[in-house]
Amino acid sequence: MATKLLSRTDIGQIVQRVGLDELYDELIVELSEAFKSSNLSSANIPPRTGIHYLKPNLGLIEWMPATIEEGVATLKLVGYHPSNPVMRNLPTILASTCLFDTNSGHLLGLLDGTFLTALRTGAMSAVATKLLAKDNAKTLGIIGCGAQAVTQAHALSRVIDIETIIAYDIDQSALSSFQDRISFLNVTVQTVTENQIGELLTQSDVLCTCTSEEPGIGPLFADFNNKPGLHINAVGSDFPKKIELPVKLLLRSFICPDFYAQAIVEGECQQLQPENISEDIATLLNQPELSKQNRQGLTVFDSTGHAFSDYVTSRLFFKYSNTFGLGTEIELECVPSDPKNPYSFFNDSIT
Amino acid sequence: MATKLLSRTDIGQIVQRVGLDELYDELIVELSEAFKSSNLSSANIPPRTGIHYLKPNLGLIEWMPATIEEGVATLKLVGYHPSNPVMRNLPTILASTCLFDTNSGHLLGLLDGTFLTALRTGAMSAVATKLLAKDNAKTLGIIGCGAQAVTQAHALSRVIDIETIIAYDIDQSALSSFQDRISFLNVTVQTVTENQIGELLTQSDVLCTCTSEEPGIGPLFADFNNKPGLHINAVGSDFPKKIELPVKLLLRSFICPDFYAQAIVEGECQQLQPENISEDIATLLNQPELSKQNRQGLTVFDSTGHAFSDYVTSRLFFKYSNTFGLGTEIELECVPSDPKNPYSFFNDSIT
Repeated sequence: MATKLLSRTDIGQIVQRVGLDELYDELIVELSEAFKSSNLSSANIPPRTGIHYLKPNLGLIEWMPATIEEGVATLKLVGYHPSNPVMRNLPTILASTCLFDTNSGHLLGLLDGTFLTALRTGAMSAVATKLLAKDNAKTLGIIGCGAQAVTQAHALSRVIDIETIIAYDIDQSALSSFQDRISFLNVTVQTVTENQIGELLTQSDVLCTCTSEEPGIGPLFADFNNKPGLHINAVGSDFPKKIELPVKLLLRSFICPDFYAQAIVEGECQQLQPENISEDIATLLNQPELSKQNRQGLTVFDSTGHAFSDYVTSRLFFKYSNTFGLGTEIELECVPSDPKNPYSFFNDSIT
Repeated sequence: MATKLLSRTDIGQIVQRVGLDELYDELIVELSEAFKSSNLSSANIPPRTGIHYLKPNLGLIEWMPATIEEGVATLKLVGYHPSNPVMRNLPTILASTCLFDTNSGHLLGLLDGTFLTALRTGAMSAVATKLLAKDNAKTLGIIGCGAQAVTQAHALSRVIDIETIIAYDIDQSALSSFQDRISFLNVTVQTVTENQIGELLTQSDVLCTCTSEEPGIGPLFADFNNKPGLHINAVGSDFPKKIELPVKLLLRSFICPDFYAQAIVEGECQQLQPENISEDIATLLNQPELSKQNRQGLTVFDSTGHAFSDYVTSRLFFKYSNTFGLGTEIELECVPSDPKNPYSFFNDSIT
């Protein structure tokens, strides 16, 4: 029984052949449909767990399982090592995703979870923005101009007609390189300094916060007079005590978590009582009248990262690997020809 | 950054080049040393968790993490699908193991966990038997003659001089084929019928129970008058309410669990109070006088399957893959050349 591996070259080929715009468009539809129609119980998708360690460096490896009744389960394996950028010129997060056949437990495949996570996080914000941003939203504010800002801006450009991006980052090099990194969008990018953040906030129709603020330090800014119908995608908060938005703002917003059980521990929702938290994204997709009722007011999508969006994204890339005949097959599991004889697997493999 | 995959052919090559006897010998030493010297805290090796489902078939995928301060972590991914043998001619358990670099979170490698688990479960019983069986143990009793019986008998043959194996299985075909499956041991195998189990039990110097008894059905037999110094490896109990040994026997035994926190939930230890459970295998390896004091009495190794033994076994096979130049390297993670630009990974990969 073969396990199919998609290499980074295979992923690059899929991106090139399908096109990034088209991938976002398809992913936004797939995610919307899948979250709308699937039974996302905590038995199928328990909150992520992992192991933390302090040596050799502070780090964490965690796993994010997801299954629905389709015969496939995914397990995303995520490494979080904050010393990577400085010490190893690597991103903080490295990830890959395993696919299992839930009929037999066979490992069907393995593929990247680093680029795919960036893609799906952007696409999930687009799903929420489509539901909750006001009509004719034109100005996108971005706070935090790292890797996530690229995929957020790109994905949002597929659902709103962005005229201007107003961007801020505490790191001047991230801020000054941002326009180059999203030049393919052909959108005016206006960068602001720390004392102009107020203008960024008050002028935005849609705001994305995607910083790597340290736990215990946030919020990023004080409450402010938002434009009517502002929608915020809060992407950076994904760890206990790591928050980006002021609680005053949250308390007057319609708050839509991606994954309630996770958001109350790691997201903006950790600042809130249950009665302040609105319907999650799956519920919202099933109740379009709720979005209509609330999109004229202030809305927040609390994005902590949902294992089911990894499931949907991995499924899409495996579909394209089949379409294009990409991937490498390898027999990994030492399945014995006689189930009662564990040594019978190497009768075949040794020639 | 490459991920190294060991295929079943690679594993077969390692077995052929090193030899199974020699692999057991080395693994028994490695496991003894590693369990003796490592800090096996619950932070480093939390009990396994997983997802259970009833559709499409009853099944379970679970993950067993382990790390110590060496810069490597392993995560064994285990599928348990009891319909496999009848419906798919596959073993109930299929597994593979991921290796991570705990400096960066990079996925270093992936290899089989099906054969390797059988191997390490045998080797762990051998470690316990070496410590707890009396001198000159000659007669091995085996109840349950499936796949595990092969690796148990083989591994034990490396630490005791087996003259006779007395075997029983409720399944006549498993029983009658067992001698063939362990013919390489050149040991007399005497099979017994259900009403001769008493003889098997009273004649054994070492006993292995390795059945797939359903939860709630055991024990396999009533208490009996054992030979002085009988040592039992209880291998089959690895699930809540799944037990093999009668509690009366346990209560007059020195009970050594492989992994205390797991054994009290899934092993024979679930029948016991904490005061009835003795030192675990790691403690026993560090306190040789404890083994000496107790090996003349009745002893039980409660083997539920320790993630750290998977760690040690995977490490050994990766060592040999380096020695012999085996394995396939593949770039899986889409690591961007510019950490702030998630699209920069495909500049290199698309040509």
